Amino acid sequence: MAETDQPPPPSDQLAAMSLTDAVEKHAFSDRVLIRSIVGRPDGGAGLAGQKVRAGGWVKTGREQGKGTFAFLELNDGSCPANLQVIVDAGVAVLNKLVATGTCVVVDGLLKVPPEGTRQKIELRVEKVVSVGEVDPAKYPIPKTKLTLEFLRDHLHLRSRTNTIAALARIRNALAFATHSFFQEHNFLYVHTPIITTSDCEGAGEMFQVTTLISESEKIEKELIKNPPPSEADIEAARQLVSERGEAVKQLKAAKASKSDITASVAELNRAKENLSKLEERSKLKPGIPKKDGKIDYTQDFFARQAFLTVSGQLQVETYACAVSNVYTFGPTFRAEQSHTSRHLAEFWMVEPEIAFADLQDDMKCAEAYVKYMCNWLLDKCLDDMEFMAKSYDKGCIDRLKMVASTPFVRITYTEAVELLEEAVKGGKKFENEVKWGIDLASEHERYLTEVKFQKPVIVYNYPKGIKAFYMRLNDDLKTVAAMDVLVPKVGELIGGSQREERYDVIRERISEMGLPLEPYEWYLDLRRFGTVKHCGFGLGFERMILFATGIDNIRDVIPFPRYPGRADL
Amino acid sequence: MAETDQPPPPSDQLAAMSLTDAVEKHAFSDRVLIRSIVGRPDGGAGLAGQKVRAGGWVKTGREQGKGTFAFLELNDGSCPANLQVIVDAGVAVLNKLVATGTCVVVDGLLKVPPEGTRQKIELRVEKVVSVGEVDPAKYPIPKTKLTLEFLRDHLHLRSRTNTIAALARIRNALAFATHSFFQEHNFLYVHTPIITTSDCEGAGEMFQVTTLISESEKIEKELIKNPPPSEADIEAARQLVSERGEAVKQLKAAKASKSDITASVAELNRAKENLSKLEERSKLKPGIPKKDGKIDYTQDFFARQAFLTVSGQLQVETYACAVSNVYTFGPTFRAEQSHTSRHLAEFWMVEPEIAFADLQDDMKCAEAYVKYMCNWLLDKCLDDMEFMAKSYDKGCIDRLKMVASTPFVRITYTEAVELLEEAVKGGKKFENEVKWGIDLASEHERYLTEVKFQKPVIVYNYPKGIKAFYMRLNDDLKTVAAMDVLVPKVGELIGGSQREERYDVIRERISEMGLPLEPYEWYLDLRRFGTVKHCGFGLGFERMILFATGIDNIRDVIPFPRYPGRADL
Repeated sequence: MAETDQPPPPSDQLAAMSLTDAVEKHAFSDRVLIRSIVGRPDGGAGLAGQKVRAGGWVKTGREQGKGTFAFLELNDGSCPANLQVIVDAGVAVLNKLVATGTCVVVDGLLKVPPEGTRQKIELRVEKVVSVGEVDPAKYPIPKTKLTLEFLRDHLHLRSRTNTIAALARIRNALAFATHSFFQEHNFLYVHTPIITTSDCEGAGEMFQVTTLISESEKIEKELIKNPPPSEADIEAARQLVSERGEAVKQLKAAKASKSDITASVAELNRAKENLSKLEERSKLKPGIPKKDGKIDYTQDFFARQAFLTVSGQLQVETYACAVSNVYTFGPTFRAEQSHTSRHLAEFWMVEPEIAFADLQDDMKCAEAYVKYMCNWLLDKCLDDMEFMAKSYDKGCIDRLKMVASTPFVRITYTEAVELLEEAVKGGKKFENEVKWGIDLASEHERYLTEVKFQKPVIVYNYPKGIKAFYMRLNDDLKTVAAMDVLVPKVGELIGGSQREERYDVIRERISEMGLPLEPYEWYLDLRRFGTVKHCGFGLGFERMILFATGIDNIRDVIPFPRYPGRADL
Repeated sequence: MAETDQPPPPSDQLAAMSLTDAVEKHAFSDRVLIRSIVGRPDGGAGLAGQKVRAGGWVKTGREQGKGTFAFLELNDGSCPANLQVIVDAGVAVLNKLVATGTCVVVDGLLKVPPEGTRQKIELRVEKVVSVGEVDPAKYPIPKTKLTLEFLRDHLHLRSRTNTIAALARIRNALAFATHSFFQEHNFLYVHTPIITTSDCEGAGEMFQVTTLISESEKIEKELIKNPPPSEADIEAARQLVSERGEAVKQLKAAKASKSDITASVAELNRAKENLSKLEERSKLKPGIPKKDGKIDYTQDFFARQAFLTVSGQLQVETYACAVSNVYTFGPTFRAEQSHTSRHLAEFWMVEPEIAFADLQDDMKCAEAYVKYMCNWLLDKCLDDMEFMAKSYDKGCIDRLKMVASTPFVRITYTEAVELLEEAVKGGKKFENEVKWGIDLASEHERYLTEVKFQKPVIVYNYPKGIKAFYMRLNDDLKTVAAMDVLVPKVGELIGGSQREERYDVIRERISEMGLPLEPYEWYLDLRRFGTVKHCGFGLGFERMILFATGIDNIRDVIPFPRYPGRADL
C-alpha cells in the first residue's frame, strides 16, 4: 500500500491525536466501523466534533471546486450506507483518491454538513494514512451499474458491489439466526460428514471423491522417468538369486568357515531383495488400478468408493437417536447437469432432527424457524432489506412481515390436489397434469401459496410412492407422514417428515422400493435397538435467501457458486 | 416402537393428566428435557410434586425388591446427568425396560427420594407411554465401559455413550462460541467453497472431485448393452447420404415438382442426421476421456480439474478486501496418508480475515478468541468438563481457567530458537536439531508452552523460507509477519499471518517460490486494485476440542472421522 506523497499535516498535534472513545472502535484494528457512525439512529449527527480514523473503499469520488477538494463516498462493508469524506487538496493528491475501488484510511474530524445535504454527518480529513490505488482504466468493475450476470465472471471482486455486499450481510444474518434459533431450543449442532460412503436414497447424482487419478498420474510420471524392468532384467535377477543360492549350498557342503557362509548368505539375501523390488516395480501399470475388469477401489484413499454428501440426514439421525435434538448446517452436493436459476452443484442445507417428536412437532418447528429468520432480518438487517426492496423486489419487506406474522396454512396432500383440481375446473391452466399420486410441480406449489392462500402453506401426508423409504407410513397404508413448506416467491422451501421408527415396517419399505438392505444395516440398527419416534426436515439455505431478498438467480446468493462448467477460484 | 403390554393405569385421571408448566417443556415435543430437572442448581428437588413426561435411553436399569419395581437411569442427551426413574411392576413389564440402550417415554410424578441417596429427585412412573426395546444379547455396545477405539467401529451408535455425547455437547458449545465471538465483533460469516479449482499453495495433498469415472462407467455399460456402430455401418450411412444427395440433385435438374423436391430433401436430411448420430456414437470410448495422451478435463463436470479445498483463506480474502471483517467455519480436506492421532482427511477449520489490521491485531484477535472459547466452556459446559476431568484428564478444567486468565506470552521466532538452544545447552534432548531457519517441530512447540512458559505462547516473525508466499515480508527481508499460537497439550493451535498487500512484493515472492503466476492472477487483483493491509489466521477446530478435553485421538472428537482406509457411513 503506497503511502501518499501528501504535504505534511498542518501541525504536530495531529500525530498525537487521540482517537475518540465515543465512537465504537473495531476491536482488532485502529479504525472505527463506518456503521458505528452512519448507522446510528441520528445518522451520526451526535458525533460531530469527534476525531476518528476510518477506512474503506471509495464507492464514488469526485474533485470539486476546481480541484481544491474532493468528495469521497467511503464504504467498509459494515453497512450499506457510505460515509461522506471531504479531503482538501492541501492534505493529499486528490486524483489518487477518487477512483471507484480505491482503498483509503483517513484520520479526520466529524462535522455536520451544510444544510440541504442528504448526509447527517461528514468526515473532514486531516490526514490520509494510506491509499490502495486503482487505475480506473484497468479496474474490471469500475462502473456502478453492472449486471449480476457480468459480476459472476468476476467472483473475486463482486463483493465490492452494493448488491453482493448486502447479500453477504443478509446471508450472514440468516446463518447466525439459524444457529441462534436451534441453540435457544436446545438443539446440538452436529457436523455430519462431507465425504460419505452412504447414499441418501437417490436424492441425486453424486460427485466422486478419489485419489486414484492423481495416484495413477504419479505412477505414469514415475514410469516415464524410471522405466519398469524388462522381462530380461527380471530373468537376470532371478538367475542371480539361483546362482547365489547355489554358492551358499556349495560352501555349506564344503563345510566352509562360518564367516564365509555368512557372507555368502548375505549376498543371496541382497539378490533376493533386488528381485522382489524388480518384481514389485514390474507390476506398476499406468492407468487406474483394476481388478476383474472393474476399478479396484480397495486402492482408493478410503479403500472403497466415496462421494460428496447429498444430505446429512441419515447420519444426523444417529445423533438424534442418542442426544435427542440435533441439527446440521453445512454444504451438500448434486452432480446433476442443471443449468437452471434454482440449482447449484454445491449448496448449504439446514437439517434439524428431533427425537420424541412427530409430524405435528416437525411442522411446528419448521414454522417457528422460518418466522424466526424473518423477524431476525427485520430486526437486524432492515437497512440491507431496504436496499433490496429499492433495487430488486419492492415487496420483499412486506413478504417477510407477512410470513413472520401469519399462521401457516396446513392442508393434506389430498386436499391440495382437490384445490388444484378445482382451480383447473375454474379455468386455471397448468403445464403438468393434476391428479392424486403426482409429485406436485413448482407451478402447483406456487399456485397454492401465491394465488390460493397468499401465505405460507404446509402440505402433508403425501402418497408413499413419490417419497423416500424412511418416511413414516400412515395408518391408511397409502400415504406417509411427509410435509413440505411452500412460500411465495420460491415455492418449496422446506421438505421434511416423521421418520419410520418401526423396524419391520422400514425393512419392508426398503425392499418394496427395490433397494438393497445391506448398505442400510447401520441405519436399521437405530430401529433395532432402543428405537424412538423422531422427525426432521431440510431447508435449502440459498432458497431462503432468494425468498427473503427477491433475487432471481441462486448463483448470486452464494459467495462462490458451483454449477456445470464453472467452479471459479 | 412397541406400545408396552402393561396393565391399565390405576385410574382415568392419568389419561387426563396435565403436564406441568413448572418444568421447561421441549418446544417441539410433549416431553420435558431431563436437564431442566436434574440440571437445576437444586438438582431438581424444588420440582417435587410436579407431574412430567420424560423420555430417554436407559443407561443402567435393574429390577429390585424381588421384581416388584425397577430403577432406570434415564438420559436424553440434554446433559451428562441421568434422571432416576422408578417403575412399579404393576405399571409395566419390568424386564422390557431395564436393558441398557432401551428407549422409554414415561409419565410420572417427581418425588424427593429417601434420605441417603445421591439423587435430589426421582421420577415415580405412573404410565409407560412407549418403549423401544433392546435385546442385550445383540446390542453392539451393551457394556458401560468400552474403549474409544472399539467405539470407532460403531460410529452409528457411539453417540449413545457418555463420552461421545459429552464431546458432542462440548463441540456444539465451541461451535456456537465461535459464531458468537465473531458476530459480537462484527465479522461476517462467509461460506467459502468446498469444491475448488485453486490450490492454497501446497497446504497439502488434495482429493479430486470428479464425475469422469461415473460417466465413463455409464458409457461402458451403455456400449455393452448397445454396441457402437462398425466402420461398415458408418460407411453405409455415408453412402446413403451421398445417394440421397444425388437424388435431390437429379430432381432439381429435372425441375421436378416442389413437393417432390421437398420430400427428397427431407429424406436427405434424415440420412445426414442418422450419419451424424452414428459418427457421434462411434466416438464413444470406454475409459476416462483423453486428449493428447492426457485426461480431458474439459469433459469433467466443471470443465476443468477440481478438488476439495484445503483452506478457505485465499477465497475469504476476496471478501475481507470488500467488507473488512469476515470468517469462514467449514470443512477442509487433506489426502495425506497420515495414520497419526492428530490428523484427519476431513476436519473443520475456523479462518477469520481482518482488513485494516496488522500482525499485532491478528495476535490480539487470536488470543481473545481462544480465551472466549475457554470462558464459554467454563460457563456453559461445566458439567461436561467435569465429566472429562473425572474420566480423561484431571487437569483440563484448570487448563481452561489458566488460558482464559493468563496473558499469552509473545516471542519472536528468533527468541524462540534462542530459548530452545539454551535448553539444549542445559541438557534438554530434542529429536530434531534446533537452529535458526528450521520449522519448529511439535516437541519444540510443546517445550516452549508446557515447560518453559507453562502458558500459551505466540511465536511470530518466522523465516520466510519456511512460510507461504502470501505472508507479509518484514523489513529485515529475512522474516515474514507470521504467528503461531502454541498451547499446552496440543502445541500449535492457530497459525496466521499478516498478508502481503504490496503488489510488487507478492509477485516477487510467488516467483521466488517457483510458483506459476497465472493461477494467482485473481488473488493478485486484490493487490492491484484498492489494496488493503490485512491479516488472518486458521484454527483447527478439532485441535481446540483436544486441547479443551484432554482426549488423545482426534478421531474421537469429530462425529464421523475420515482417515486412510475409513469413511464409515
